Amino acid sequence: MKLVSYRMQEQQAWRAGILREDRIVDIASSLAGAPPGMLELLDEWERWIEPLQLLSQQAGTPAEGQSFPLEAVLLGSPLPRPRSFRDFYSFEAHVKTARARRGLEMIPQWYHFPVFYFSNAAAFVGPNAYVKKPATTKWLDYELELACVIGKEGVDIPVEQADRYIAGYCILNDWSARDLQREEVKVGLGPAKGKDFATSMGPWLVTPDELADVCIAGEEGNRFALTMVARVNGIELSRGYFQDIHYTFAQMIARASADCPLYPGDVIGSGTVGTGCILELGTERHRWLEAGDVVELEVDRLGVLQNIISE
Amino acid sequence: MKLVSYRMQEQQAWRAGILREDRIVDIASSLAGAPPGMLELLDEWERWIEPLQLLSQQAGTPAEGQSFPLEAVLLGSPLPRPRSFRDFYSFEAHVKTARARRGLEMIPQWYHFPVFYFSNAAAFVGPNAYVKKPATTKWLDYELELACVIGKEGVDIPVEQADRYIAGYCILNDWSARDLQREEVKVGLGPAKGKDFATSMGPWLVTPDELADVCIAGEEGNRFALTMVARVNGIELSRGYFQDIHYTFAQMIARASADCPLYPGDVIGSGTVGTGCILELGTERHRWLEAGDVVELEVDRLGVLQNIISE
Repeated sequence: MKLVSYRMQEQQAWRAGILREDRIVDIASSLAGAPPGMLELLDEWERWIEPLQLLSQQAGTPAEGQSFPLEAVLLGSPLPRPRSFRDFYSFEAHVKTARARRGLEMIPQWYHFPVFYFSNAAAFVGPNAYVKKPATTKWLDYELELACVIGKEGVDIPVEQADRYIAGYCILNDWSARDLQREEVKVGLGPAKGKDFATSMGPWLVTPDELADVCIAGEEGNRFALTMVARVNGIELSRGYFQDIHYTFAQMIARASADCPLYPGDVIGSGTVGTGCILELGTERHRWLEAGDVVELEVDRLGVLQNIISE
Repeated sequence: MKLVSYRMQEQQAWRAGILREDRIVDIASSLAGAPPGMLELLDEWERWIEPLQLLSQQAGTPAEGQSFPLEAVLLGSPLPRPRSFRDFYSFEAHVKTARARRGLEMIPQWYHFPVFYFSNAAAFVGPNAYVKKPATTKWLDYELELACVIGKEGVDIPVEQADRYIAGYCILNDWSARDLQREEVKVGLGPAKGKDFATSMGPWLVTPDELADVCIAGEEGNRFALTMVARVNGIELSRGYFQDIHYTFAQMIARASADCPLYPGDVIGSGTVGTGCILELGTERHRWLEAGDVVELEVDRLGVLQNIISE
């Protein structure tokens, strides 16, 4: 099942929908009692997951006014305003290469536990949105990531149960102002202004059942055999594989939830896949992003997340 | 004016109230059309600020059922669930001393711009709440800070206008697990598990008009002549002065809002005042916190924020 947040015009409230073939089926007008927004659905995920699956599998065209052609709607981030956003750092190749680019060795602590930072949950945008280049950055970068969205409250969640807390998966672009980030992290509090201006997510939230045949289950939770690609202005720059991830989402959830409740609508980013940003590739491979650049992230089964840089 | 979030019993929804003498006046049942919760009031702050000031100055006892003795209610964090939480690092003495304790010199970048990290907005508690020691920490610490709460949306807010975006001030305790923090920050993403388990704020939100006579206005915005004290089990450990802050809240708001909208209900922490935590004082002065310890933060005009450590 693929879930979206959509609206017909700017300024309207985002409504939750299901993608069925090439149409968006509005959830609240198709399921009696269902709330209009995605966050409210996630708050009652156990109640709605089965009716939603049935709705997504129905044959035939939905009743008048309950569905719209995909090309007639505006898609937002599947979850327009997450409750929170934690971004991890779980691909070894990215950490190694990005540090080597700055003349730094690998950090032993990275192998001890998954590490994350909190970022701005109020700056999420969806597919096709313009991403405004921060006024003072000259080194704007993309980051090719996967995200999972939490669908169930829990604390101290054991690794072996953690995958059950995931409502679905999305592509995520953790836009980064590398020059701002480079200066601020020297103070020791991690990235903030380097990352707070935008995060894009989408185009849809894909439920775990759609990935069952590419799932690589293990004691540390699920990995998925998914190729991840980034293109800038149509030219492929990044290619990585989700199955190469060192820490699974289950391990990240266990870490995040230790002594700290997670809630429906919390978003967890994987961190950048190896080769998945210009910082890693080097500006000899591609200059930093500029206004007008079209950045597409594509992941098997999860779709294409395209954004355009604006001034 | 002093604003609170209160309830009569556990599990009830938090309601916004005004502290008048030693009574809490319920806002929604006293002002026609006012929403019950603090976040919703902040969302319409310009509409409600005057009626609230009038209500707070009314003489006589409010009508039956519209007010309660302070000692009969449970107080929460004045804003039970902030929209976001940014914590800065704006007192020079704290940064210098805490770094020196770890054998590190002062960072030149600290003098270039105010630096912050995003932390967990979903773990706020109020006065008298128990704060559970994370299972794996042995080095639990308090941090004596001030917070401001944003009452107006804005982006790229200039320093000279930024104080007008502040709805009020509170005492804030940014509880810290120093051993977890020490390990995770080596990876370079800043503190997360070292800080995510609890933040306490309160006891009330004090509006700027109450601090007019202790305000030290300057080109960089307002500072306030306020003594800040921390006591553990009745023994004073920390004593600092808010006027010693290097970066004002106005400067922090300008930094946070650059290319990134701020919203009503966003909370901004000042960072720890000099001497304001055990990390700075050293464990020769006081051991790390243990279950049963009573930690009181007191700031002139802002009250006392007391919490108790539990296992």
